[in-house]
Amino acid sequence: MSLSEHLEGFPITLRWPVAWGDMDAFQHVNNVVYFRWFESARIAYFEACGWNERMRTSGVGPILAHTACAFRAPLTFPDHVLLGARAEGLESDRFTMRYRVVSEALGRVAAEGEGRVVSYDYRAAAKAPIPEDVRRAILDLEGRGGGQ
Amino acid sequence: MSLSEHLEGFPITLRWPVAWGDMDAFQHVNNVVYFRWFESARIAYFEACGWNERMRTSGVGPILAHTACAFRAPLTFPDHVLLGARAEGLESDRFTMRYRVVSEALGRVAAEGEGRVVSYDYRAAAKAPIPEDVRRAILDLEGRGGGQ
Amino acid sequence: MSLSEHLEGFPITLRWPVAWGDMDAFQHVNNVVYFRWFESARIAYFEACGWNERMRTSGVGPILAHTACAFRAPLTFPDHVLLGARAEGLESDRFTMRYRVVSEALGRVAAEGEGRVVSYDYRAAAKAPIPEDVRRAILDLEGRGGGQ
Amino acid sequence: MSLSEHLEGFPITLRWPVAWGDMDAFQHVNNVVYFRWFESARIAYFEACGWNERMRTSGVGPILAHTACAFRAPLTFPDHVLLGARAEGLESDRFTMRYRVVSEALGRVAAEGEGRVVSYDYRAAAKAPIPEDVRRAILDLEGRGGGQ
Repeated sequence: MSLSEHLEGFPITLRWPVAWGDMDAFQHVNNVVYFRWFESARIAYFEACGWNERMRTSGVGPILAHTACAFRAPLTFPDHVLLGARAEGLESDRFTMRYRVVSEALGRVAAEGEGRVVSYDYRAAAKAPIPEDVRRAILDLEGRGGGQ
Repeated sequence: MSLSEHLEGFPITLRWPVAWGDMDAFQHVNNVVYFRWFESARIAYFEACGWNERMRTSGVGPILAHTACAFRAPLTFPDHVLLGARAEGLESDRFTMRYRVVSEALGRVAAEGEGRVVSYDYRAAAKAPIPEDVRRAILDLEGRGGGQ
Repeated sequence: MSLSEHLEGFPITLRWPVAWGDMDAFQHVNNVVYFRWFESARIAYFEACGWNERMRTSGVGPILAHTACAFRAPLTFPDHVLLGARAEGLESDRFTMRYRVVSEALGRVAAEGEGRVVSYDYRAAAKAPIPEDVRRAILDLEGRGGGQ
Repeated sequence: MSLSEHLEGFPITLRWPVAWGDMDAFQHVNNVVYFRWFESARIAYFEACGWNERMRTSGVGPILAHTACAFRAPLTFPDHVLLGARAEGLESDRFTMRYRVVSEALGRVAAEGEGRVVSYDYRAAAKAPIPEDVRRAILDLEGRGGGQ
């Protein structure tokens, strides 16, 4: 099984270097680093569906309401990780983002995560529907656009 | 309601300063910082139940298998947070740690979290029962020791 | 010699906890953490001289042009550090900030640092004089105000 | 001038992604991140001259005694940086590492740094000469090996 097969079904993928300084005193990559990686994958997803740009023009942007990580295998420097992000459970004002971390050195999935993303109108300080063009872009990214 | 009442039932509590540098480009404390705080509370809990010391002598220590955070209110600098940690669901080789973050500036709970902790024999590279004295110390900390 | 004597001459001092997660794989506090501490002391200094508030109203704020740290003794968790900040070499549009890190566990200076701070008009995108009230506050903090 | 020309004379170069989370509340890459990048370049240099491996077998490793960074241009996400590391001033038990950070988005040098590296016998807890094979590897990397 090739590494990229571990990320099948993830429309957004990134390759990221593990830094020596990502390791903690137990000499494994520290748990907080995974959430930084999830964030990088999430931001890349938002970029791909136009939400970063839309936020600047409309004031409606994403808020992270909950996040979690299941650690499957400890990581060490040197290594590179492949990061995957996909959306599921899309509702009018929220969805769940799924993350996967694949280690090149280990050749396997090292962690899986999720984040509950809520759409928020920063100007009105209230929940707001996901902007329609962002919503369509998410459906397209997830292969569910186009009238099916 | 006083701030410390928000941490009733948490045997381990810490007070921690929010750093200006904990904020991200959205000008709120970044999500990864909460997991660093959880870690500090978890390590304080391990210290209190003697697991850090026991790990050095026995090679059996804790592994974080899963962790999660629910964000209740955004935080900003300047502030101090009160961190609480308690254990529940104690089994022979695992338990769940519950965390709570209370903001002094907001006067309310800012986040709640959990971590699944598994006991691991680092020398044998295999799961292992929680050392008996650590287990008794956890029961004592949680008010369930002493013949009840 | 008491710990606070190590910070004589520093008008701004902070006490900060060392986190377990501040340590790296060499099991000492990682070098980048010292610069986060310097930043916390610098921001506290700016707060004390009113520059954070003045920046919001005038658009003229500080930029860090250069920073350095001399490491005197390695630090480990658990510990608390005392952080000191003072200004010297005040010119119309710049000054040098001096930092000191004192370890409670070691009872000695663990690091010394400096930062060159330049005043910058973020709206005009150009260097600008330090706002006059900020400049006077710095002179007061450093004990050189009041007509001398 | 091509980007890589900015790193002429640096035997070790790395390409590193800027994370969104590297930015702080001023919406620029935070100053501590540069020291993490310097560290990654330094570790790559140590790897290239065999010091990481030699440290494991001999107990003699590098200590960072002093480090500094001059910030030339603010960085923002998204971007990639090219990191360069080279050694100079090689003495029997120390040398100075020079770092350079080049921004792909800006097409220019964004920062320059240095680190004073001292050789230390961790088992004897005392300064120690740089291991001879490491020293020769440094001379080779810097193009001063080979019989001169």
